[in-house]
Order: sequence, then structure tokens, then C-alpha cells
Amino acid sequence: MIAFSNWAAIFGLAGLALAGVIYQWITRQPDGNDLMRQIAGRIHEGAMVFLKREYKILAIFVAVVFVLLWVFLNKSTGLAFLIGALCSVMAGFFGMKAATKANVATAAAATDKGQAGALSMAFYGGTVMGLSVASLGLIGVGFLFWYLDILNVVSNAKIITGFSMGASSIALFARVGGGIFTKSADVGADLVGKVEANIPEDDPRNPAVIADMVGDNVGDVAGMGADLFESYVGAVISTIFIGSTAGAILGTTNQGAMALAMTLPILGLLASVIGIGSMKILASSKPANALRTATFIAAGVFVVLSYFVTSAIGVKAGVFGAILLGVVGGIAIGMLTEYYTATGTKPVARIIDASETGVATNIISGFSVGLESVCAPLVVIALVTLFSNNLAGLYGISVAAVGMLATIGITMSVDAYGPIADNAGGISEMSKLGPETRQITDSLDALGNTTAAIGKGFAIGSAALTALAFFAAYTQAAHLEKIDLTDAKVVAGMLIGGAIPFLIGSMTMSAVGRAAFVMIQEIRRQFSEIPGIMAGTEEPDSAKCVDISTQAALKEMILPGVTAVIAPVVVGFLMGKEALGGMLAGALLSGVLLALLMANAGGAWDNAKKEIEDGKLGGKGSDAHKAAVVGDTVGDPMKDTSGPSMNILIKLMSIVSLVLAPLF
Amino acid sequence: MIAFSNWAAIFGLAGLALAGVIYQWITRQPDGNDLMRQIAGRIHEGAMVFLKREYKILAIFVAVVFVLLWVFLNKSTGLAFLIGALCSVMAGFFGMKAATKANVATAAAATDKGQAGALSMAFYGGTVMGLSVASLGLIGVGFLFWYLDILNVVSNAKIITGFSMGASSIALFARVGGGIFTKSADVGADLVGKVEANIPEDDPRNPAVIADMVGDNVGDVAGMGADLFESYVGAVISTIFIGSTAGAILGTTNQGAMALAMTLPILGLLASVIGIGSMKILASSKPANALRTATFIAAGVFVVLSYFVTSAIGVKAGVFGAILLGVVGGIAIGMLTEYYTATGTKPVARIIDASETGVATNIISGFSVGLESVCAPLVVIALVTLFSNNLAGLYGISVAAVGMLATIGITMSVDAYGPIADNAGGISEMSKLGPETRQITDSLDALGNTTAAIGKGFAIGSAALTALAFFAAYTQAAHLEKIDLTDAKVVAGMLIGGAIPFLIGSMTMSAVGRAAFVMIQEIRRQFSEIPGIMAGTEEPDSAKCVDISTQAALKEMILPGVTAVIAPVVVGFLMGKEALGGMLAGALLSGVLLALLMANAGGAWDNAKKEIEDGKLGGKGSDAHKAAVVGDTVGDPMKDTSGPSMNILIKLMSIVSLVLAPLF
Repeated sequence: MIAFSNWAAIFGLAGLALAGVIYQWITRQPDGNDLMRQIAGRIHEGAMVFLKREYKILAIFVAVVFVLLWVFLNKSTGLAFLIGALCSVMAGFFGMKAATKANVATAAAATDKGQAGALSMAFYGGTVMGLSVASLGLIGVGFLFWYLDILNVVSNAKIITGFSMGASSIALFARVGGGIFTKSADVGADLVGKVEANIPEDDPRNPAVIADMVGDNVGDVAGMGADLFESYVGAVISTIFIGSTAGAILGTTNQGAMALAMTLPILGLLASVIGIGSMKILASSKPANALRTATFIAAGVFVVLSYFVTSAIGVKAGVFGAILLGVVGGIAIGMLTEYYTATGTKPVARIIDASETGVATNIISGFSVGLESVCAPLVVIALVTLFSNNLAGLYGISVAAVGMLATIGITMSVDAYGPIADNAGGISEMSKLGPETRQITDSLDALGNTTAAIGKGFAIGSAALTALAFFAAYTQAAHLEKIDLTDAKVVAGMLIGGAIPFLIGSMTMSAVGRAAFVMIQEIRRQFSEIPGIMAGTEEPDSAKCVDISTQAALKEMILPGVTAVIAPVVVGFLMGKEALGGMLAGALLSGVLLALLMANAGGAWDNAKKEIEDGKLGGKGSDAHKAAVVGDTVGDPMKDTSGPSMNILIKLMSIVSLVLAPLF
Repeated sequence: MIAFSNWAAIFGLAGLALAGVIYQWITRQPDGNDLMRQIAGRIHEGAMVFLKREYKILAIFVAVVFVLLWVFLNKSTGLAFLIGALCSVMAGFFGMKAATKANVATAAAATDKGQAGALSMAFYGGTVMGLSVASLGLIGVGFLFWYLDILNVVSNAKIITGFSMGASSIALFARVGGGIFTKSADVGADLVGKVEANIPEDDPRNPAVIADMVGDNVGDVAGMGADLFESYVGAVISTIFIGSTAGAILGTTNQGAMALAMTLPILGLLASVIGIGSMKILASSKPANALRTATFIAAGVFVVLSYFVTSAIGVKAGVFGAILLGVVGGIAIGMLTEYYTATGTKPVARIIDASETGVATNIISGFSVGLESVCAPLVVIALVTLFSNNLAGLYGISVAAVGMLATIGITMSVDAYGPIADNAGGISEMSKLGPETRQITDSLDALGNTTAAIGKGFAIGSAALTALAFFAAYTQAAHLEKIDLTDAKVVAGMLIGGAIPFLIGSMTMSAVGRAAFVMIQEIRRQFSEIPGIMAGTEEPDSAKCVDISTQAALKEMILPGVTAVIAPVVVGFLMGKEALGGMLAGALLSGVLLALLMANAGGAWDNAKKEIEDGKLGGKGSDAHKAAVVGDTVGDPMKDTSGPSMNILIKLMSIVSLVLAPLF
């Protein structure tokens, strides 16, 4: 049973092959008329150009860090870092290739095959990302697990942490860059198009619409994928690391504890494939139920499988309990997020009511909802931490994170479904497909808002638990007996750490502001200099807008990214490893708080606007609607740029500390 | 030298007598014409009615807690609690009596005596609050210090912590209640008056204007006073408590360490009186410089005096270093706040620029400024903590807080100046005084915005340091060897603690929203049902608006107040004293972050609007101005209700834990 864990990479390869098969199937599907192909082509091209330019910049960063790790630590850690970065890049690339094909195929399917066909297409488009993330994680970590012969050379477990650092580094840049790209385009397009020129969303005359749709892909597909990839491998790797010395207290050997960590994601992949397959049958039921049921099926299968495997490996029962806590915690956080952000809920109704008295009260109430929404998920994370630790010590916390993330194959698929459906809606609008088609794509898109909000909640929750697992691993790696809050160094570290997420949050918010400003100027210029655009006789220069977003994203992602990597190094060297421990705790708390606040306030503002557009308080064009549009625009950079950056920030700071612990 | 500390209460009585003399002087000053007297009378009456009704509710709370403390701890702690609550109430009452007389006297002085006379009047009106706070602190703590014979019965030091808990309890209700009162009136008055009816601020036709001006007094005078009173006595008391066992490491006796804690605020009061006296000469110079110079003179005198006293008592030099760090830290945080919120600064310019592209970008940039503004003050607090601890251990942290707060007599005077000047401006506007008068009161009011913002920064910084001192005292009182972040209980406590400020923040924000909604309906009703209001032939029913704010404030303050008191008790009993330690640390970090974010974003939005009103981007009535008005309205409950509540929340949670430590 234990040796089985060495086969993880093989399962990963099989999963990747399945992703390839699905991708081939998607490319063979009808992709609509010439206009649709043309629009989709531009989106695809814009996304690929961005990715390639981003990867060029990241290549420099990765090379520098690789050399530094080699020189100051050792070659193996450097190589693990390199492989981690590469796997993350590949997952993002594959997922985005598929998403930018599936979007137009979904629009076509909505015309040809109706709702079930379109739902299937968008979902299976997302599964390429989901399966790529899960499989490349297994391939990368599994390969190192086998190659470093960790079951026999236990001390090699710390080398594998380099993989996580590589994945984290790519993730931060991808998340921040993708987030800035998507929101500079979105905010710019909305403010000039919807507010000033009074043309609808996704109107082909708006030069920034293509950039907006490219942004959905680079932000919500590639960015989200890199984020979850990192949590996923991070959870597994910290469990391997903690397991390398924890066998005795778990009633097994160190080998057993590590093997379990490597086996659980294999089970998760199998469960995800079963869940994905179940969509064949579920696709014809109500879309929201179909996606939820498929996710629950996968979670259920995973729980059953892991019960048998924990028994077979012979760890004490508490370990299974911790895994179960992770699974349940993830679902609970998703449901809490849904409660605070979905249409028809009380908190969203509060924002709708407040829109009646204008923008100011809309903003105040949205902010208030965001503040409140932080509490319950934090209590869930606290309880999962507390009880999983009671059940199986630090290993319990870490393995709970694995439990939460093991079925990433399907949760990521559902996440990627959102932007594909969103794109499909945009393509339908731009290519003026019939009202039946538009109604289908609109309803799938609306569902995508909810899945996106839930996905964000899940991403934050899992990031928090992964960061806690890293934190636990860090205390072991740094040989810290304690991180004592009665020690002023630790308190000072905590206060400084707490400020970092706010700093990065500010940087990313103002980056979007700056980029959106340039975008606004450009759209205004095109509208005034090319009069034929509005008449529909001339094409807007959408390539220029894509370029503005690309430039801005690539320029603005560097400072936050570098700050996040360097901050723990500086504190570690200047103030010592106890203070660094305090810093990680402070950053974790403040990062999770800010991430939840931003994601949920943003999601709630978005859906308050949606409900008003669907007829509440006078519907589109009413004063309440205008107020709600502003709220949505304010929420945009919060929920899609700054908020998600926090997830990776807290993981990146911890993993950098964990990898560099021997130096402090 | 050491026995001298037993005389603290006598100095306090002398200070209070001086406050009484100043108050008498104010009441003898000219108070303008009949209309002015009538308006001032309504403000005075509204404020006093609110205070009396608030005190009735608080009396019940205080009585219940008094009995509980008596039963579960001991009678002395209960009595100390009672005296603390009483002193806080008296300080608020005296200060507000004076402020609601000085406002109209300032308006009259602006007409009769010009700028210097008006500045003097507003400032001396504020000194009644400043001196009351400083003196009642000395009277209360000094009396207990002498009565409990702490220099001889060292173990009595812990009884005195009850005083702080009493002051904290009053402070939270006063701050939250006052904050809800002032902002429900302000937001309501602005949204209907300025935005809908298009009449200027402080227009006598607006029925909520009187309530708004009452709110300035109950929020910014009484609320702020209770807050700072609590920090002030809290810093002194935790220093006495920590000093009661710290003599040896400070190179003195425990008596010496405690005596120093009780002597420093005496020096601070003397220094404050000198600073206050210097305004006689400074009043004719530029107002901003006059206030700043007076504050610096007091700080300088205090530093010199405390140098000699630390030498005389014979503690090691590090103690003076820690005191100095506290003084410098307080000034640094004030200056940082000024940088982020004052007119003419870069961050405010960012918001102004963003107003050009509309409300959404105004809000985004203000939020971004707020996020950024958190970082530097947090680093200052971290460094003061770190170095004062290096210099003199936990006693150093605590005595640094005393250093920061010792000259409260003058800093609070400057704070109270703001709402008095604001009221004076409103009274001038309402009673249609000449343009020269209005120009003077407007410029004093504008300065008041800046002093208010700086005061808020200072209040947060000192609250953080006081809470850290309480936290240090708590670890001693609970006999905790360590609060270890590698212990899952502590981490869970930290996560839950971190959520509490967000919960209270949400409660208070939505309370303002709800109350403002009722206010808006009432103002709209009066405008539509009493057509003579707009024509100027009929009086609006301003008493009704005062009553709405009063009702809302008293109702809505209860839940947040009770939550703050109960949360640490629940965690202490259910999860133990280590987890409670983690909770306090988490609440402290998250509370300070949120307080700074809200106070600074709110201050910056306010002044961005001011600068536009003074002519930037098209001035009043422009689209940029409309955007800036919304930003200001959003910032209002943040900076004046929820943000300031955080200060007291973190202190209250810590002091409750400290007092109840023997029970856990």
C-alpha cells in the first residue's frame, strides 16, 4: 500500500491524457459562424499573447531565484522550484487554450443544442483546466516523490518544498497580473461604455470588450488555476514534510504518513473523474443543481476511498477525521459564501434596499455585508484547525487542507466553467445571436457569477488552511520550540506582517485604477476620433485595448510580487525566525480577513446589480440601478484583483519562509 | 520622591478646578444675538438629553457588572469598576457642557474679535474637556492608588484594573452610541439636503442640521473623550500592575516602578497646563501652527520633567528611553495621519484625480489610500513595542503608552477644538452672520478636519499601545508562561479574535445605514408635508430629527457593546486562557488595521471633497464634486462610527480579560 504512493505521477499522466482527449473533442465541436469565429479568434490570440509575454518576464524571475536557491541552499531545491514553476505555467496554458476554444463552442451549442448542450460544453471546457491542475500537481510532486526516493531518504522531504515555492511564485504574478488585466479592461469598458455612452455590456462597438473577455480568461481561468494549483500542491507537500517525522504519533511509520499524503490526491483525482463523468447524466437537470451534485458526488467518493486507504495504511482513526473535517470545512465555506453573495439572499437584499437611497448607501451597505461575511468562515477555519489538530496534531491540520483540496479536479472545473459561460454570453451578444440563445447563455453566465463567488470563498478557505499547514511546517523546519506572543519580537513581527496584505491590496487596487484610467482615455479617444464606431460602420481598435491591459498588467504585477517574496526574507534576517513566525501569523490573519471582505463584498455588489437589472426597484436605467452599477464597479477590483492576490500572498510568504528556514 | 505619587489625586483636583475656572469664563463670554442663542440652546439641550438618556441605560449595565464583579471576584474590584465608570461619565459631561457653550461663543468672537479671538475661544472651550479627562483620570486612579495603599500593599495593584474596565465599558457605549448619533444625522442631512434638495450644508431649512451639530458634540467630544480617557488611565494602570513585580529588572523597587507610573501623568498634566497657557501668546499666529506649537511645547516640557523624575526615582536609563519612544511614536503617527488625510497631500490628490472619472474611481482610490495608510503607523507601533521592550521589558511597552498619553490634557483639548469650530461654523451659517465671520469660522472648521484626522490617528496608535500593555499585563495576571502560536488553540483563538472587529464594524456600519434611512424618510416627509420650510416661512421640526438619532444610537449601541464584553469571557471559559491570549492578539491586529483603514480613508475622502469645493476640478456642483460628496458620505460612518469603535473594542476585550484572568 505504501509503495503505491510512488505511482502518483503515472496517475497524473493518465489524468492529463484525459484532459487532452477532452480538449481534442472540444476543438472538433462546431464553433458557429464566421463572425463568432473571428471574435473568438481575437480573444484566443489576446490571451495567448498575454500569457507568452508574462511567461517571458517570469522566466527571468524564475531563473534568478533558481540560481539563488542553488547557491544559498542546494541544487535540488532549486530544481524542485523550477519544476514547480513549470508545472504551474503548463496548467495555466492548457486550461486557457481549452477555455478560449470552449467559449465559442458553448455559444454555438446554445444555438444548436439548447441549454443542456451549452452547459455540457462550458463545463467540459472547464474540465481541461481542472484535470490539468490536478494532474500536473500529481505529475510534478509525484515525480519528485519517486525521484528523490523520499520513502527511503526521508530527509529529502524538505527539498520538495522548493516545488511549492515555484508554484507559489508563478501564482502570485499570474493572479496579480491576470487580475489587473481583467479589471482594467472591465472597469474601463463599463465606465465609458455603460455609463457614458449608454451602450449595453459586451456591445461590439465598445473597443474594450474584447480585452474584457480576454481578461476573464487570464484572470479567472489562468489566475484562479495557478492559485488553486498552488494550494493543492502546497497542502500535499506540507503534509509530506510534516509526515516525515510524525509517523509515531499517528500510529504508523514516517513512511506511512508521507505515503498517505501522496496517495490522497490520487484518490481525489479518481473521485473528480467520476464526478466529471456524472455530468453526462446530470447536464439535462437544472444547471446549478447539476454542478453542485457533480461536486458532491466527487467529494463523497473521495471520502469513502480515503476511509479505506487510511485504514489500509494503518494510521489512527483521527487522521481520517481530519480529512473529513477538511472536506466538510471546504463545503461549509462555499455555502457561507453563497449565503452572502448569491442572488435572492438576505445580505444581497440589504444592498438592493440601500441602492434606493443612492450610491453612498449602496457602498456603505455592501461594505457592511463584506465585513460581516468574514466572521463565519473564519470561525470555520478556526474550528477545522482546532479539531484537526486535536485529532492528529500538526499533521492533522495539514491533511485537512489536503482533504479540502483533493477533489480540485472538479472544483477547479466548476470554477473555470464561469468565465467560459461569461465569454459565451459576450460572444452571443457581439455576434447578435437570437434571443433564445442569449437567454441560455445569460442564465449560464448568471450561474457563473455564483460559482465564481463560491469558488473564491473556497480558494480563500483552502489558501488559509494551506498557509497554516506551511506555517506548521515552518515551525518544524526552523526548529522553533515556540512562537511566543509574550515575546515583543513576535508581536512586532505580527504587526508588520499584518500590514503587508494591506500594502499589496493598496498596490493592486491603485494599479487597476491607473490602468483603467489609461483605458478610459483610449476608449474615449476612439469614440471621438472614429465616429463610425457608434454608427456601426467602422470597427473599433480592440487590439489597442488588449495591448493597454497587457502592458499595465505586466508592469504593475512586478512590485507586489517582489514585495511578497522579499518581505519575509528581510524580516527573517533582520529580526530572526521567531519574529518571522509572528509575521507569518499576522499576514495570514490580515490576508484572510481582507480576502474575504473584498471577495464577498464584491460578489454581493455584483449580484445586487444583477437583481436590479432583472427588475427590482425599477430595473435597468433606474436611479437604483445606477447606484448598483457603481457598487459593482467598486467591487470589481476588490473581488477579482486585490482579494484573490491575498490568497497567494499568504501562501507565498509562508513557503518562502519554509524553504529558507535553514538560512535564518 | 516615591511617596509623592500618593498626591496624584490632589493634582487632579487642582486641574479640575482650573477646568471649572475656564468653564466659568466661557459662560461669561458674549454669545451673539437671539437667533444664535436659540440655535445654541437647541444644540445644548439635544446633547444633554442624549447624554442623560444614555447614562440611564449605562447605569443598568454598570450596576449589573458591578454585582457580577463583586460576586465572582471581590468587592474592591467592583468598586474600582464603579469609580472608573463614574469618572468617565463625568469627564464626558463636563466636556460637553463646555463645548456646547463655547460653540456659540466662538461664532460671536469671530464677529467681534476676529480670527485670534475665535481660535482662542474654540481652543479654550476644548481645554475644559482636555483638563477634565486628564484630571479625572488622576483623581480616580490617584485616589485608588492612595486609598488602596498600593505602595505598601503591592498585591492591591490588581484591584485597580477594575477602574480601567469601568472606563472602557462607558467608552465603548459612548463611542458607538455617539458615532451612530452623529453619522445618522450627518448622512441623512447630506443625502436629502445637499444631494436631493440642493441646499447647502448647515442650511437652517434642513430639519436634521441641529441633530448633525448635536452629533458633533456627542460623537467627537464625549465619544472621543471617553476613548482617550480610557487609553490614558489604561496605560497608567497597566504600568502600575506590571510595575508591581518589575522593580528588580528596572534597577529599582516595585514601589519605585509603581510610583513612577503614577507620577508621570502628574508631569503630563503640568506640561499640558503650560502648553494650554502658551496659547495666550500663540493665538495670534497661524491657527494650525499655534495648535501644533502648543502641543509640542507640552510634549517637550513633559520629556524634560520625566527625565528628571526617572533619575530621581532611580530607575535604569532605559525607562526614560521607553517614555521618549512613546512620545515620539505618538507624534510620528499623528504626522503620518496628516500625510494621508490632510488637504494638499499626495494621497488626497490621488483621490481628487480619480474623482474626475466618477464616483466608482473616487471610492476605489480612497479605499486604496486607506489600505496603504495602515502600513507606516503599524510599523511605528511595532518598532515602539520592540525597542521599548528591549529597553525595559514589558514595563517598557506599558510606560511607552503612558509617555504617548501623558499630555492628554492638551491633545484632547485640540481634539475637542474641532467639533466646537465645526459647530461655530454651522451656527454662523444658520444665523446668517456676515461673510467675514463665515470666512473665519470656515477656516477654523477646515483646520478642525485636520486636527480631527490627526487626533484619530493618535487615538488609534495610543489605543494599540494601551491594548498591548493590557495584553502584557494579562499574560502576567493569567500566569501564562507563553502564548504559543505553534499551539492550535492559540491559532484558533487568534482567527476568532480577528473576526470580532469585523463583526462590530459591520454592526455599526449597518446601524448608521438603518438610522440614516429613517432620518432620510423623516426629512423627505417634512419637506413634502411642510411646504413652508423651503420657502423659509415655516420652521422645520428639528427636535424630531434629534429624537430619531437619539433613539437609534441608544438602541443600536447595545449589541456591539455587549458582544465586546462577552466574547472574551466565552472564549476564556470555553477554550482556556492561552486561546484567549491568541484571541486578544488577533483582535488587536485586526482592530488596529480596520481602525486605521476606516479613519484614514474617511479623512482623505473628506478633504478631497473639501479641496474640490475650494475650486479644484470645477469646484462645487461639478461632476467631480458630486463624486467626491459620495466618497465623503461613504467615509463618514467609517471614520466617525465604526473606525473609532475599534480603539475601544480592542482595549475593552483586553481589560475584561485582564480583570477576569483569575477566573480562567
